Amino acid sequence: MNRTASPWQLATRTARMNPSAIREILKLTERPGIISLAGGLPSAETFPVEAMREATARVLRESPREALQYAASEGYAPLREWVAAEVGRNGLAVDAAQVLITSGSQQGLDLVGKVLIDAGSRVAVESPTYLGALQAFVPYEPEFVTIACDDEGPLPDAFAARAKGARFLYALPNFQNPSGRSIGAARRAALARAAEAIGVPIVEDNPYGELWFDAAPAAPIASHWREGTVYLGSFSKVLAPGLRLGYVIAPPAIFAKLVEAKQAADLHTPSFNQRIVHEVIRGGFLDAHVPTIRARYKAQRGAMQAALAAHLPQSGPLACSWQVPGGGMFFWVELPPGVDSDALLVKAIARGVAFVPGAPFFAGEARHNSLRLSFVTVPAEAIERGVAALGAALAELHDETAGRRPRRPAMQTAAVAP
Amino acid sequence: MNRTASPWQLATRTARMNPSAIREILKLTERPGIISLAGGLPSAETFPVEAMREATARVLRESPREALQYAASEGYAPLREWVAAEVGRNGLAVDAAQVLITSGSQQGLDLVGKVLIDAGSRVAVESPTYLGALQAFVPYEPEFVTIACDDEGPLPDAFAARAKGARFLYALPNFQNPSGRSIGAARRAALARAAEAIGVPIVEDNPYGELWFDAAPAAPIASHWREGTVYLGSFSKVLAPGLRLGYVIAPPAIFAKLVEAKQAADLHTPSFNQRIVHEVIRGGFLDAHVPTIRARYKAQRGAMQAALAAHLPQSGPLACSWQVPGGGMFFWVELPPGVDSDALLVKAIARGVAFVPGAPFFAGEARHNSLRLSFVTVPAEAIERGVAALGAALAELHDETAGRRPRRPAMQTAAVAP
Repeated sequence: MNRTASPWQLATRTARMNPSAIREILKLTERPGIISLAGGLPSAETFPVEAMREATARVLRESPREALQYAASEGYAPLREWVAAEVGRNGLAVDAAQVLITSGSQQGLDLVGKVLIDAGSRVAVESPTYLGALQAFVPYEPEFVTIACDDEGPLPDAFAARAKGARFLYALPNFQNPSGRSIGAARRAALARAAEAIGVPIVEDNPYGELWFDAAPAAPIASHWREGTVYLGSFSKVLAPGLRLGYVIAPPAIFAKLVEAKQAADLHTPSFNQRIVHEVIRGGFLDAHVPTIRARYKAQRGAMQAALAAHLPQSGPLACSWQVPGGGMFFWVELPPGVDSDALLVKAIARGVAFVPGAPFFAGEARHNSLRLSFVTVPAEAIERGVAALGAALAELHDETAGRRPRRPAMQTAAVAP
Repeated sequence: MNRTASPWQLATRTARMNPSAIREILKLTERPGIISLAGGLPSAETFPVEAMREATARVLRESPREALQYAASEGYAPLREWVAAEVGRNGLAVDAAQVLITSGSQQGLDLVGKVLIDAGSRVAVESPTYLGALQAFVPYEPEFVTIACDDEGPLPDAFAARAKGARFLYALPNFQNPSGRSIGAARRAALARAAEAIGVPIVEDNPYGELWFDAAPAAPIASHWREGTVYLGSFSKVLAPGLRLGYVIAPPAIFAKLVEAKQAADLHTPSFNQRIVHEVIRGGFLDAHVPTIRARYKAQRGAMQAALAAHLPQSGPLACSWQVPGGGMFFWVELPPGVDSDALLVKAIARGVAFVPGAPFFAGEARHNSLRLSFVTVPAEAIERGVAALGAALAELHDETAGRRPRRPAMQTAAVAP
């Protein structure tokens, strides 16, 4: 290839864009026999195929022309009204006029980035945070500011101290991807107060909130500061991700700009999909359907919780730690210091199990001794086998490392100061 | 409202983003009784509802889990292969690996902008050009360079002289929106040669190529310089726009970056829609279906051609001019110098007909005495009545302007130098 002759000059932003680490791992997991605890894929068992079939037939019978024609960039009005009512039930009172239907909530993140981020803008994120959000924001060339977190999410004082002048804080308060952690009610109020005090808006992303196992989440952060918060939701986890349907709820100060960005991005989300989903859900379908997903995922969480306790050491030189998530799809495992989950992945794949290493989820300094496990994609029996294989891979890696350890320092003595 | 207290700081790029002029006009056309020659909406009569119904039922019967699950960012492999074969039939030999499925070709334009445009980059465009492309590119803050055009499209010499150093030339060679004009075979080759000589790639947008009435278009510009051209296509005009399905074909030099941008934008285009459309078209459906669209639109073009000849003056002080398009959806009418199509629109709406003023289609200096008429959205009889009303509105505007003219110069004499 004669590179100098290429007529293509790439935009500067592309230098920071990279293929998703998860995506590359997912390719490995397509090999036959691999148990994938890697993907963030909902269980296909939960897809309401029969309801989809009926709704599609009805839409194509009753409003085929409207479903197949161009439509408004804001979205299908009855679906916008449904969303407004639904988030109202969850403690966030909004008008349907503030609801923008998007092509999955990933598009909501892209539109937020396009409208709010200049090159060099500071954007505050949790540590770790959702990789897809980093990918959506990166093309707009922000400087990420990592906010210290505890088991309940971002620390309000750390946020107030570090985030002044940031364009927004990106937070995922319910069963966060990747950590599984949730922000409690008092912490939500405190974060909203801190944000208002320093004048930094919040982008609140809630794809997993409906997937609670024991108790429904607290009211959204947005309910504490409506005019300072953008709220994102999705139908991917309660219906099916292959429809690519999500929404953004934004205050009047930026709603019109988000609609303009949406129009420039893809004119509108498919009217076909919007009408079918509205037809599925308008009669209260989710009230019966979502509990079946919760029950399934709760059982699978239990299976992973038991498997982790059985197969990963919690004391000694290989002691691992994890929180038990109250919902969602993920366990986040902290490995012993010095164990690199990239190296562990190689061993794990050889033993027939895949996971996602933790490093890509950090916008700042990465903790390489961490990994994410999904408990929703494969059934309980496979979870048990997969976690057992992971435990064996960890032991193998440790044995090899221990075997090599005496040699390494000796080899490096000459070059490295003590 | 306390504006100073708003926590939202918008990105600089939003200052250049605006709601589409067409969109605002389309709102007017929703008033009952208005004949809209404004929208670029395909005739809903052409939507293959029965084929969609069968294909959807089959997809939900045979591969519901795959259709409703997350999928690859590049698109559904059999659909990518279909696209490669189809553009091959039209004279552009490509590998399916170079095909990226997008959420309408509008998204293709957004991704191209994201990957190729830096703030201040020069982007060469036709005059007039597709408004949706300007909207897609504007958020990336280019400087538009307008290339002089004749009835056959951009002049290669003007392009070579003005576009050196531009990131790309954006061209719409078949039945262009808004002008209806097509670029001939020799001009395509000459443009490709000029582009290669100055090292400026071409972004070739072809949503309307299948809608030819008399003869199929010449081979794509891309066929003359494959490694220097991105080619965009769409299912919106041959199947239905409400599915939001298009594609980008790009050389290896930029394909991977477009996929990364796609992934960041919305992960992937709905697998549901991709599989349904593939199910509709895989057996050769379009070979029978598209000729029916061509026949319908050709008859409607004829109706508009006759109505224009009957109701718009072609000589005298109100002489208008237009080209008869060989396909597509639009007539472009040049009004007499000094007649502003914005003012004409007010009169036209009052008489029950809407069109799109020409000014928004110019990236550089706008020709306000121009307008776009769609002949596909409403049937022949309504076209006749609509164009008659347009002719009457033009005469009324002229009479009023003529009536006022004597007063104006007198009022201004004191202030304006002779």
